[in-house]
Amino acid sequence: MASLDPNDYAFKRKIPEGDSMERHVCSDCGWVHYENPKIVVGSVVTFEDKFLLCKRAIHPRKGFWTLPAGYMEQNETTAEGAIREAYEEALANIRIRDMLALYNVPHISQVQVMYRATLDKPEFSAGEESLDVQLFSWSEIPWENLAFPTVYWALHQYEEIKDQESFVPFTNAEGDMLKKSFEMLKR
Amino acid sequence: MASLDPNDYAFKRKIPEGDSMERHVCSDCGWVHYENPKIVVGSVVTFEDKFLLCKRAIHPRKGFWTLPAGYMEQNETTAEGAIREAYEEALANIRIRDMLALYNVPHISQVQVMYRATLDKPEFSAGEESLDVQLFSWSEIPWENLAFPTVYWALHQYEEIKDQESFVPFTNAEGDMLKKSFEMLKR
Ligand SMILES: [Zn+2]
Ligand SMILES: [Zn+2]
Repeated sequence: MASLDPNDYAFKRKIPEGDSMERHVCSDCGWVHYENPKIVVGSVVTFEDKFLLCKRAIHPRKGFWTLPAGYMEQNETTAEGAIREAYEEALANIRIRDMLALYNVPHISQVQVMYRATLDKPEFSAGEESLDVQLFSWSEIPWENLAFPTVYWALHQYEEIKDQESFVPFTNAEGDMLKKSFEMLKR
Repeated sequence: MASLDPNDYAFKRKIPEGDSMERHVCSDCGWVHYENPKIVVGSVVTFEDKFLLCKRAIHPRKGFWTLPAGYMEQNETTAEGAIREAYEEALANIRIRDMLALYNVPHISQVQVMYRATLDKPEFSAGEESLDVQLFSWSEIPWENLAFPTVYWALHQYEEIKDQESFVPFTNAEGDMLKKSFEMLKR
């Protein structure tokens, strides 16, 4: 796959005419590559009292467990993106309930929109980006081997409101939950 | 300002190696220009029982009234972006309360995150992208001259929950509100 790093190409950082910030500008043809924050869409998918997790087949965090989630594509909605990602990564047909959380990860310019979703039937298997897909009860979740802090946040926040019909969506974890989610990543 | 249309440059649409969708690829240097949905961040800003609106100085919808909102930048959070936009467009220092709505506009690949926000003091004036900035009571709002349907949705949805300490954020308007917001744009 071609490099995603603008520094590998004929781009130079400069301020385009009429702009106020430095951008990547191609020195061959003048194209201004505006970098925009990216949206990740995903979901905490449950079947009965179990959680659907995917073991990553790709870097970063290959071999660690994650929620079905990925970059939103053009011309889809956030919910459609979450449905697509669950199908691509877990061959699962999910039903979106409501928004669980909106997370900001500004140091990598990412916004994550996470939904509550369900499976009608326990039918799933590993898609191309997954080594394995499994349903775990709360106590079976591989807490020591989660891929990202936001996976830890989403699972715990879901657990907090799981009996509620409606609730105010969560934002980034704070305090103890934030601390624990980062400790996990040091392993 | 340089053109934002990839068709004006040395880009060709093709499927990069290891990918499954057509992308813009630069024929000079091979750079793959991934197009991603963009995030607009903004807010319904109130002072006492009045709403802060900005008259657009730029296309599209120049001369029409809008909420302080704009494209999220790199390395900021959605709330920080909404605060920055209110300062840029209305020279207003706003205080974010909570998320009002998340809108999807898939035909232009846009996700809008709208907040409830307040002004401590009625201090504001037109920034570079605004011709005018004013506080309007509900009945004074220039309903016939709003810039975008989502401005209409956000104002009405705010009005619905204005007395509530917390609420489930809204999504795209439906039914009558959707219909009325589009009728408005035909004028
Ligand atoms: Zn070029
Ligand atoms: Zn190039």
